[in-house]
Amino acid sequence: MQRISLVNTAHNFIKEILHPGAIAIDATVGNGHDTLFLVKQVSPSGKVFGFDIQQAAIESTRAKFLQTQGMKCLTLIQASHADMSDIIPANHHGNISVIMFNLGYLPGGDKNIITCTDSTITALHSACELLSSQGIITIMAYPGHSGGDLETAQVKNWCEQLDKEHFKIDIIYSVDNKDSAPRLFVIQKMH
Amino acid sequence: MQRISLVNTAHNFIKEILHPGAIAIDATVGNGHDTLFLVKQVSPSGKVFGFDIQQAAIESTRAKFLQTQGMKCLTLIQASHADMSDIIPANHHGNISVIMFNLGYLPGGDKNIITCTDSTITALHSACELLSSQGIITIMAYPGHSGGDLETAQVKNWCEQLDKEHFKIDIIYSVDNKDSAPRLFVIQKMH
Repeated sequence: MQRISLVNTAHNFIKEILHPGAIAIDATVGNGHDTLFLVKQVSPSGKVFGFDIQQAAIESTRAKFLQTQGMKCLTLIQASHADMSDIIPANHHGNISVIMFNLGYLPGGDKNIITCTDSTITALHSACELLSSQGIITIMAYPGHSGGDLETAQVKNWCEQLDKEHFKIDIIYSVDNKDSAPRLFVIQKMH
Repeated sequence: MQRISLVNTAHNFIKEILHPGAIAIDATVGNGHDTLFLVKQVSPSGKVFGFDIQQAAIESTRAKFLQTQGMKCLTLIQASHADMSDIIPANHHGNISVIMFNLGYLPGGDKNIITCTDSTITALHSACELLSSQGIITIMAYPGHSGGDLETAQVKNWCEQLDKEHFKIDIIYSVDNKDSAPRLFVIQKMH
């Protein structure tokens, strides 16, 4: 049986939405864990765009995919997710089924390089535009690390000001150690 | 694509845990919607026990199952879920993979007959004992109806006092209309 975790929960939401042939974005490639999951869901004919500002993240993820041969579905882009609107081809705008954000720092990487709230919020605005009808954005946020508490609060504020006619927002948290425990935000575009 | 709702979210958690041959309990049969879902998951060889104090709920659910021929997996019991420990055969104790609670009143039924918090808490204690390792309890609570606000608060308190070494508790809510919006509690028994 599966052990429940917020990461698994995010994946379970996405499994219901993301099918072979669809297009997805991993806004924060990091160690490539979510990227691999997205590629598996859309293979063999779909498309995943993966963004990360760190070369180490892009390279290690590319290495991971060369082993698994999912590379033809994947486009890795060393750039800020704040620029995703400019980078994603215009014909895909409004056709993205899933956009994943995993905030914070690269596991095993430089903890001083964290997602910046301003660029995260810019990216989230873009994500809402890029999303298809019924498509979802998932955001894992970690209030437990330095700067993460503020970032989580700002993401929550951003969610709360979204137009509820067009977006449905669910927030998931664990009861244990409430203040610093990760939060999962799931946003579905209604139409 | 699936529209995200708390009911679908509860089902998505359960799908990861509940497989053919397993045993589940619907602690609040109501209109039989969740009962039907559980029977589909455990069929053809598993078992679902469904509890409801209202004869109308038991009868309409039985009628629903006579059409779908899932009846051989299902035992419907007109009794309070507070008595589930006494009613579920002893050889199943500790072997139940999923126990669902949907609090409040029977849709379309008498709104004066609502789940009673005392019996709900008694049933939740029993549910923790009946659950298998890695098994989950899902609780849908509706703070929007009369008495539902107090019941939801008491369920939340009960969750918070659970031993975090043995139980993992996730709470899911929608941002829209926060105070009266339904809450989903998901409790997984660790060992």
